[in-house]
Amino acid sequence: MYEQRIETVRRLLGEMGLTQMIVSDPRSIQYLTGAYVEPGERFLALTIVEGKAPVLFLNRLFTAPKPLPCEVFSFDDVDNPLPEVAKLLHAEETCGVDKNLAARFLVPLMEAHAAKSFALGSPAVDGARAIKSVEEQALMRAASATNDQAMARFRELVHEGATEREIADELEKIYRELGASGHSFDPIVSFGANAADPHHMPDDTKLKVGDVVLFDVGCRQDEYCSDMTRTFFWNEPTAKQREVYELVRRANEAGRAAVHPGARFCDIDKAARDVIAEAGYGEYFTHRLGHQIGLDEHEPGDVSSVHDEEIQVGMCFSIEPGIYLPGEFGVRIEDLVCVTDDGCEVLNSYPRDLTVLGPR
Amino acid sequence: MYEQRIETVRRLLGEMGLTQMIVSDPRSIQYLTGAYVEPGERFLALTIVEGKAPVLFLNRLFTAPKPLPCEVFSFDDVDNPLPEVAKLLHAEETCGVDKNLAARFLVPLMEAHAAKSFALGSPAVDGARAIKSVEEQALMRAASATNDQAMARFRELVHEGATEREIADELEKIYRELGASGHSFDPIVSFGANAADPHHMPDDTKLKVGDVVLFDVGCRQDEYCSDMTRTFFWNEPTAKQREVYELVRRANEAGRAAVHPGARFCDIDKAARDVIAEAGYGEYFTHRLGHQIGLDEHEPGDVSSVHDEEIQVGMCFSIEPGIYLPGEFGVRIEDLVCVTDDGCEVLNSYPRDLTVLGPR
Repeated sequence: MYEQRIETVRRLLGEMGLTQMIVSDPRSIQYLTGAYVEPGERFLALTIVEGKAPVLFLNRLFTAPKPLPCEVFSFDDVDNPLPEVAKLLHAEETCGVDKNLAARFLVPLMEAHAAKSFALGSPAVDGARAIKSVEEQALMRAASATNDQAMARFRELVHEGATEREIADELEKIYRELGASGHSFDPIVSFGANAADPHHMPDDTKLKVGDVVLFDVGCRQDEYCSDMTRTFFWNEPTAKQREVYELVRRANEAGRAAVHPGARFCDIDKAARDVIAEAGYGEYFTHRLGHQIGLDEHEPGDVSSVHDEEIQVGMCFSIEPGIYLPGEFGVRIEDLVCVTDDGCEVLNSYPRDLTVLGPR
Repeated sequence: MYEQRIETVRRLLGEMGLTQMIVSDPRSIQYLTGAYVEPGERFLALTIVEGKAPVLFLNRLFTAPKPLPCEVFSFDDVDNPLPEVAKLLHAEETCGVDKNLAARFLVPLMEAHAAKSFALGSPAVDGARAIKSVEEQALMRAASATNDQAMARFRELVHEGATEREIADELEKIYRELGASGHSFDPIVSFGANAADPHHMPDDTKLKVGDVVLFDVGCRQDEYCSDMTRTFFWNEPTAKQREVYELVRRANEAGRAAVHPGARFCDIDKAARDVIAEAGYGEYFTHRLGHQIGLDEHEPGDVSSVHDEEIQVGMCFSIEPGIYLPGEFGVRIEDLVCVTDDGCEVLNSYPRDLTVLGPR
């Protein structure tokens, strides 16, 4: 399987006119070799060079599973592995580099003239990763099924006087009990006006009557990520809250309905955005509609107005419209979808109906 | 204060022959502006260009405190801010870049010929950050005092049948109760043979009689990091365990004793390493002696055999020798120190005596 993935990357590199690449993203290396290492500030890379076996550059502090679909170059903290990388490269050709390769590694390779020039090679790896195999789709489905189950328990944690942080602190244990290994990203739990900041981090804000309760949460299970948002109400919503909720719900629905092979990412963004814009709330939907997801909780390829690539069968991404009214409240409803031959499979089944959790 | 720090960076850049730099590390930007943002895959940068006001490139999704010591260029997810960065740079001069700047930003700037060439400019920023001011030293001291208090409570969590993960899950709450904002890094809790892997992550291993219990833990408090390791015993140690523990304790002591202005990082590493090597365990001390620390839990400037820079007053770093016997056990004892006029202040006061926690 890993050999086949590396071959796919070689082919996609060839289509980009590249004969060699340095892959450094830990999840890309996991995708291509099965070895997952978080190197911190240390060097980690997989070289894919025409005519040569792939080589994993791995600090001896870390261990990799065996067998690996590549050779391994081991080094210590006191070694500089970059000259060895340079030796492997064809110096007279352009080298593709990982979009995440840090300048502390790239600049010395440039200064050593290890390649004729350096270009972003990530589209080859990201292109391979974007199309989930049947096995990967099963793992994505399972991770989202766990997220659905988890959401049903998370809502039970909400009670008057609870703080966002207290609730956020309880989530990981529930994920583990359900079979996940943990969060796929830092969970967002936002009450009331805090939900008007899409990236609000849980703090000591206490729940009070009239608040929305927004959960943007995901787990990692068997290495694959889930990601879902639901917005609940603590008290019967006001007319405005209800209007905004229903708009976001309809935008989510319109986004999902627009997913089919041949549609472009920007078409899907537009389908959802139009619902909100036509009701006069366009300026309060301040972010892209979604992002691809898999081994990483955010993978390249936004569902946004400026991304005109056509979607393909096997791609997985989020549909997450929101309306954010500063100082008042915010609503976001997010699901993951996987593109199928005739539309998409929605990976989340947790209900989207307007739900009042309390007071109880 | 921030203006002064930016001036220091300008001066250090000048000493490197650079007139401009792109700072992208979130903690460096926090150090220079007071604004802390975790941008994920989004662009975040502070440009420091001769003859121009510094500019913070900030996605509108994030908010920054006011006042800022710089101008702000705001952009949305659908904007590409890199052409604006290029406009600010002197195209005919070399541009310093952050060691962490990702290739997805650096390569397009190279391809746009935004500067004559690109070089690593981080030594200017890291050099400024390495020397902690009196105010920063007070924050480092406070974070480590909290870590000392926390360790006294962490050891109480250990009981027969507990798993590493169960204990690790309890730590953050204790840090928060003591006034910290959370972990400064993922905590390491290792039992028995797991402690022989310096980077072991807590798993479902259960404590059993005869195990060592290693805590490598730190908190972030008022933005500054602590980091300490203690290794306890669950049952009276064997003769070999005792021998190894005492060696590591003496190596830690020798490392701390070697810290004084004028000493080189490699001298300090050697002082500690010699203790272990002379007893025949040299090959089992598999990593550098330590690392600098501050706003990040790992800051550049290893305490290692290959780093021959002289230490300076105000530098803070770890002294963390260890002996790792695969399949058996491992011991590490780590403290933070801050260099003073005549030696160092040890920021941790938690005892290093061999301690048997149980069975109880």
